[in-house]
Amino acid sequence: MEANGPKEEDNRRQVIPGPTNPMVTPLLSDLYQFSMAYAYWKAGKNNERAVFDLYFRKNPFGGEYTIFAGLEECIRFIANFKFKEEEIAFIQASLPKTCEDGFYDYLRGIDCSDVEVYAVSEGSVVFPKVPLMRVEGPIAVVQLLETSFLNLINYASLVTTNAARHRSVAGKSKILLEFGLRRAQVVEGPDGGIGASKYSYLGGFDATSNVEAGRLFGIPVRGTHSHAFVSSFMSPDEIMEKSLQTRDGSSTCEDFVSLVQTWLSKIKRSHVLRGIFGETNQSELAAFTSYALAFPNNFLALVDTYDIGSEIMLLRFVMRSGIPNFCAVALALNDLGYKAIGIRLDSGDLAYLSCESRKFFRTIEKEFRVPDFGKMGITASNDLNEETLDALNKQGHEVDSFGIGTYLVTCYAQAALGCVFKLVEINNQPRIKLSEDVSKVSIPCKKRCYRLYGKEGYPLVDIMTGENEPPPKVAERILCRHPFNESKRAYVVPQRVEELLKCFWPGSPDKPREELPPLKMIRSRCSNQLEQMRPDHVRRLNPTPYKVSVSAKLYDFIHFLWLNEAPVGELQ
Amino acid sequence: MEANGPKEEDNRRQVIPGPTNPMVTPLLSDLYQFSMAYAYWKAGKNNERAVFDLYFRKNPFGGEYTIFAGLEECIRFIANFKFKEEEIAFIQASLPKTCEDGFYDYLRGIDCSDVEVYAVSEGSVVFPKVPLMRVEGPIAVVQLLETSFLNLINYASLVTTNAARHRSVAGKSKILLEFGLRRAQVVEGPDGGIGASKYSYLGGFDATSNVEAGRLFGIPVRGTHSHAFVSSFMSPDEIMEKSLQTRDGSSTCEDFVSLVQTWLSKIKRSHVLRGIFGETNQSELAAFTSYALAFPNNFLALVDTYDIGSEIMLLRFVMRSGIPNFCAVALALNDLGYKAIGIRLDSGDLAYLSCESRKFFRTIEKEFRVPDFGKMGITASNDLNEETLDALNKQGHEVDSFGIGTYLVTCYAQAALGCVFKLVEINNQPRIKLSEDVSKVSIPCKKRCYRLYGKEGYPLVDIMTGENEPPPKVAERILCRHPFNESKRAYVVPQRVEELLKCFWPGSPDKPREELPPLKMIRSRCSNQLEQMRPDHVRRLNPTPYKVSVSAKLYDFIHFLWLNEAPVGELQ
Repeated sequence: MEANGPKEEDNRRQVIPGPTNPMVTPLLSDLYQFSMAYAYWKAGKNNERAVFDLYFRKNPFGGEYTIFAGLEECIRFIANFKFKEEEIAFIQASLPKTCEDGFYDYLRGIDCSDVEVYAVSEGSVVFPKVPLMRVEGPIAVVQLLETSFLNLINYASLVTTNAARHRSVAGKSKILLEFGLRRAQVVEGPDGGIGASKYSYLGGFDATSNVEAGRLFGIPVRGTHSHAFVSSFMSPDEIMEKSLQTRDGSSTCEDFVSLVQTWLSKIKRSHVLRGIFGETNQSELAAFTSYALAFPNNFLALVDTYDIGSEIMLLRFVMRSGIPNFCAVALALNDLGYKAIGIRLDSGDLAYLSCESRKFFRTIEKEFRVPDFGKMGITASNDLNEETLDALNKQGHEVDSFGIGTYLVTCYAQAALGCVFKLVEINNQPRIKLSEDVSKVSIPCKKRCYRLYGKEGYPLVDIMTGENEPPPKVAERILCRHPFNESKRAYVVPQRVEELLKCFWPGSPDKPREELPPLKMIRSRCSNQLEQMRPDHVRRLNPTPYKVSVSAKLYDFIHFLWLNEAPVGELQ
Repeated sequence: MEANGPKEEDNRRQVIPGPTNPMVTPLLSDLYQFSMAYAYWKAGKNNERAVFDLYFRKNPFGGEYTIFAGLEECIRFIANFKFKEEEIAFIQASLPKTCEDGFYDYLRGIDCSDVEVYAVSEGSVVFPKVPLMRVEGPIAVVQLLETSFLNLINYASLVTTNAARHRSVAGKSKILLEFGLRRAQVVEGPDGGIGASKYSYLGGFDATSNVEAGRLFGIPVRGTHSHAFVSSFMSPDEIMEKSLQTRDGSSTCEDFVSLVQTWLSKIKRSHVLRGIFGETNQSELAAFTSYALAFPNNFLALVDTYDIGSEIMLLRFVMRSGIPNFCAVALALNDLGYKAIGIRLDSGDLAYLSCESRKFFRTIEKEFRVPDFGKMGITASNDLNEETLDALNKQGHEVDSFGIGTYLVTCYAQAALGCVFKLVEINNQPRIKLSEDVSKVSIPCKKRCYRLYGKEGYPLVDIMTGENEPPPKVAERILCRHPFNESKRAYVVPQRVEELLKCFWPGSPDKPREELPPLKMIRSRCSNQLEQMRPDHVRRLNPTPYKVSVSAKLYDFIHFLWLNEAPVGELQ
């Protein structure tokens, strides 16, 4: 990390805006943080310097990786952390009356200028036990940040990971649309929804249906029409304004409705398609025609409103009404120089229906010599999730883009990531939290964390060391030990060493603060890091756990502390 | 509904504030609602009068009831529905450039004065298929409300139902605390958390740990301290300020730390307790003593920080350190006239530990003649959910209050309620949405809904009728039909008839608008309604489905429409 004077200066002066949601205030916290702050203050301990690690214990979704997200919002939160008078009044009303007034003066004075945050870069691939954030500062202040940090990191990382997993199973060539707003866990507000859109994009989605998320974060916004739109029409007779200019503006088709009807008859009479369908639904035809008149350059139609009867009838009926109606409108548009975008399927057997639709489009391409009509876009959107995408791949399908909602944003397969915030050092004294369950034992000490890369360029192992240990060196052998299992250890000769925890707050001339990159850059980091992983760590089925280790010195120290803290059992 | 002039007047003039979260704006919507609004406008259909029903299809959590919540936020949303210039600019940037400017002028002009909302009262017990809200108005405007309404109702109703189920299994006498903020689905903001707290309270919880929710909604706020607080202390030697006044202020104990040590020795030496423990943990003792000095009237201690070793050792160790340390401090407080609140257990076998703790407290009560010490409060809080509460009940336990977080607020057992918003009528023409899946067929027509009560006072059945059918009458026989199953029908002679859908917006002199009651009243409605249900509908195991029906006339009409819309299959 070389110093570069002027940049640091800018960086130090940079004004960091508050959290995206104005409701994220210092009061967005558990009462016990304030109770503890008072007890610390009362005991004169409030300024004791504490180090907390924020980490999780288990990768979600049965996988072996997690994407870290939510950091920018944390930094925006602490950069603007300051109590308002009305907030202090409410805290005072919530704590016992016996609490001394001096405490509220103390609260009035605090901010986060004396707090240091070291964190992994947002969008990074991360693993259990390794701190995502190391937060150091006066114990009372740092405790006041705990709930907000957990709240801002937990869901963000969970939904980003979920999105990345969906991207991984869908493959790079598919378009993934996030459609989750109406199902997101939001209540009185959009945050589940807004956040879900932001972090789905970060994890590899291409666009969202959520307009507000588009506005706030610059995410592409997409959408077409609903079934209600189709059923709100009765028949093409009700379309009053029937004219449509050609795309180049050179002339006007005075009766687009008739042009559509003409095409529908041609399709029906066609030798190749003959007999496939009889009468198409007139309400649907009217809706498609109207939609095309409104969006001649963006015609994308939901083709399964009239999906009734048995599954077999359904297949036949989409093919008998939705698809021919769509094709008639698309061909009429084509006559005027417009290119339809495609169809959306929202029910039924998506693999089969997409293949049948593709065949129909290809037949139209050949039959009426419309170049590229066979490549018409097919979007699918019925309660999709990682498993159904995988099943579609196995069955074979012709879907180009997927609209994914409920399962993505509610993280149905795993409702919480379970990050924790543990005290690892106070007044330079390391602290360990023991537990009957070894996976819940915390790793003590203020630490540094490194990712060691091998010859092939893959990350091999993450290693945690004490703060003052010399860092691992390229081409130099280092012993990596499992933190709790004596027999698990390995020598590693790293080809590259990356320090994971970087200074994000507040920064100083000799420890410049990391920039908060734009969302698109965080998104690229996420996809680059995933590509860099050895494939067996990130595959869906039976992924190999990535190794997380401690240095020999830290290992010895952990076990020394452990023995010191744990009482000796008595067998009776 | 009798008219009462002056009240209506007030009610009409009442200013309804905006949504709790300022991010709930008309832009918090799916793009396709705007695409459709444009297509409606372009087709001259935007002012066609449409009726939509908002309902769900299946009760959550394997139960047979749901609590309706989120209505107030919906009404606050539409009462203030108006586009800002910058919002219109963003919509314009998101829709195709070909969209005409007139549409944006149209958007500038719209509000919800021409929209009518009829809804079930918030906090009511509700059932699948029966509309929770009936929204009528210009089709383009009503469509623009869809996403927001679904977003505001879905999670609110889900978490309220979840809370009500937890209350039901915990029993009336227990205190239920919502501890979910750090796990809520929130991202960039607290809404999951804020809403989770509000709706958990509505569903029957007593308090929340979330300070901001307490401030916004007047919910009682609770909390104690964490494990980190305990591990931040080293030993009682570090406590500087040792004096504590007696509760009545008559005198001061100059060395409270010594008083605690004296009690700890007495407990150790006690004949009855002798040999139960050796040395207690000094860091823990220091933390408890400090906490008591800070909160002499509110001493509640987390007693399982030092829970190490095997499960058997753990039981023994809580009993050997946490409990005796707590008792020493509680007894010292008792000397000065203070009454400790109790302990919190956050790990291990809660049934067994709570019973053992209770025994210890009772022994102390007898041994040292401290009245009521045996009734010391016991709070439990380790990943609790409906199932674990049920298991605790079966094992037998001594817990007085439960702190419930992750499973409550993330609705782990069911991540979404799946409300839908379906067009049922346009321009007085009923519309039906058919589906291969009968449970997905919508019930057409603008409807009225009633709950019919039997002799015992229990609700018997909900019935939907056409808008202009005469309402069911008390003591008059009426045929209730299953909407789709011909053979399921029953005559009912109601003893009481309750109309479910009431006017919540905008109201008029002859249809006065319902008041939006305070949260506490909604909470009472919820618990009253649940008590009124026949017990077998609301029990946990194999509950009986509650019946939902349509009138004979509506049944016939549905099936007439169905036959009309559905194509006749062809067997080939």
